[in-house]
Amino acid sequence: MINYSNINGHLVAAGEASLKVSDLSVLRGFAIFDFFLFRKGHPLFLNDYLDRFYRSAQLLHMEVPFSKTDFARQIIQLIERNGQEEGGIRLLLTGGYSPDGYSPAEPNVLILQYPLPAKTWQSSQGIKLMTHTFLREIPEVKTTNYVTGISLLPELKRCGFDDLLFVENGEWIRESVRSNFFLVFDGQRVVTPGNKVLLGVTRKQILHLAGKRYPVEERDVHISELKEAHEAFFTSTIKGVLPVVQIDDQLIGDGKPGLVSAQLYQDFISHVEAYLEEQSRKARQLMEA
Amino acid sequence: MINYSNINGHLVAAGEASLKVSDLSVLRGFAIFDFFLFRKGHPLFLNDYLDRFYRSAQLLHMEVPFSKTDFARQIIQLIERNGQEEGGIRLLLTGGYSPDGYSPAEPNVLILQYPLPAKTWQSSQGIKLMTHTFLREIPEVKTTNYVTGISLLPELKRCGFDDLLFVENGEWIRESVRSNFFLVFDGQRVVTPGNKVLLGVTRKQILHLAGKRYPVEERDVHISELKEAHEAFFTSTIKGVLPVVQIDDQLIGDGKPGLVSAQLYQDFISHVEAYLEEQSRKARQLMEA
Repeated sequence: MINYSNINGHLVAAGEASLKVSDLSVLRGFAIFDFFLFRKGHPLFLNDYLDRFYRSAQLLHMEVPFSKTDFARQIIQLIERNGQEEGGIRLLLTGGYSPDGYSPAEPNVLILQYPLPAKTWQSSQGIKLMTHTFLREIPEVKTTNYVTGISLLPELKRCGFDDLLFVENGEWIRESVRSNFFLVFDGQRVVTPGNKVLLGVTRKQILHLAGKRYPVEERDVHISELKEAHEAFFTSTIKGVLPVVQIDDQLIGDGKPGLVSAQLYQDFISHVEAYLEEQSRKARQLMEA
Repeated sequence: MINYSNINGHLVAAGEASLKVSDLSVLRGFAIFDFFLFRKGHPLFLNDYLDRFYRSAQLLHMEVPFSKTDFARQIIQLIERNGQEEGGIRLLLTGGYSPDGYSPAEPNVLILQYPLPAKTWQSSQGIKLMTHTFLREIPEVKTTNYVTGISLLPELKRCGFDDLLFVENGEWIRESVRSNFFLVFDGQRVVTPGNKVLLGVTRKQILHLAGKRYPVEERDVHISELKEAHEAFFTSTIKGVLPVVQIDDQLIGDGKPGLVSAQLYQDFISHVEAYLEEQSRKARQLMEA
């Protein structure tokens, strides 16, 4: 059971966590968020997620009313109070209770805990994507705006696809709704769109890990390159590394998950294990000090 | 005092109207809304606003869980219970309390009442606009997404502008954040962007009224046409007809509100008066019947 949420620095009963309807997240979709996992009680790559959360806020001229250190402390406290070993944490910063229903007011800050998603880092036979001509409104900012993705869920289901691939002007591949996108060429060259995408934390880890084994490129990727690709995969906090085997009616490579994706998936799992061991070691040192 | 709101068909204390944080309006900006005025206890152009609200819902594959007739009855009931002669009403339909934080669930429907905005249908010396290269994500749908407009408020203020003018690809004038945009050429020809805009209810009334006096065109409008225009104005529910006298560093016409704008403003006021008299007459007939 997850008993607690944190709203504006105070623990509240999770089931009663609510916002008045004058909040600008409700009225104007004016809010940023972030989401990360914790394992063995330790948030994974917390500094990266906090950096992104604060950067999202700054780009929209919003202010997180806590220092990163204080905010991290509140996150750890919430995880400890809820007493779960693993799960997900959502951070949310809203435009606040606006007197005129439009101008930002004192922000509301929420820390919400969730059970570990069922599909976390599962390997897969690979998923099928439907392209959609679209560029996220402010791609670098993790706003709460998912209207396009959610409104296309019925069409995805009807057409038998698993997720979307956003293509700017029908030409430049950018990202998916909640995932970054990678291609593998010549059985080894790892390429991901470098502009106008949300800079995923898992994307960053995978770029780092891939760079140890393969040539890596962050650059604009044209839709016509799909037919040359040997592999494709998603990265995301929840999915980790997830093979993509078909885009519209086009198979990627031989239509099966590829060796590079599988290698990077293994590397990522090992990287997380090492990160957790390091966090545990630091925690023991602190306890002993 | 506004004492009541209506949530999912039930009256609740206005000050306590809230949504749980699992609502998709909060987590994913997945919600549509509408806003209209009432005067002398009568909603203005209610059928037009209800039609748009239901159309917005349909375009996002959402469903309003009430018939239009039932929903209109709830709106009237709320206005009567709050006992104010005039004010504003916001309708809101959200993606509901989503179990997985992404997939739409049973929607939440809100009817919220507000005092009449202070700046309703005031004449003005005219406002100054700053152009911004942007096209709303799903222009035909009145979603709650106002991130771009709100995040540019500090820049507007810093540069001394009153509002934004969205220009697709820097070429095609579309609309403002919360208003439709009109130009007047040759001292009489009334032109407004016809595609990729929210079809405003006040826009519709003004097109109707303008058509009785002037040639009227709904079509794509290129940014280069601004220098030929004699007048420009906004239409919106709250602003009515509001003259625009400058766009970026370019004066429109002689930089003063124009005669056509003033005429249409008067026509609109008279049109609303006539509408209200008709509504009162109908109400009296119902009472006497």
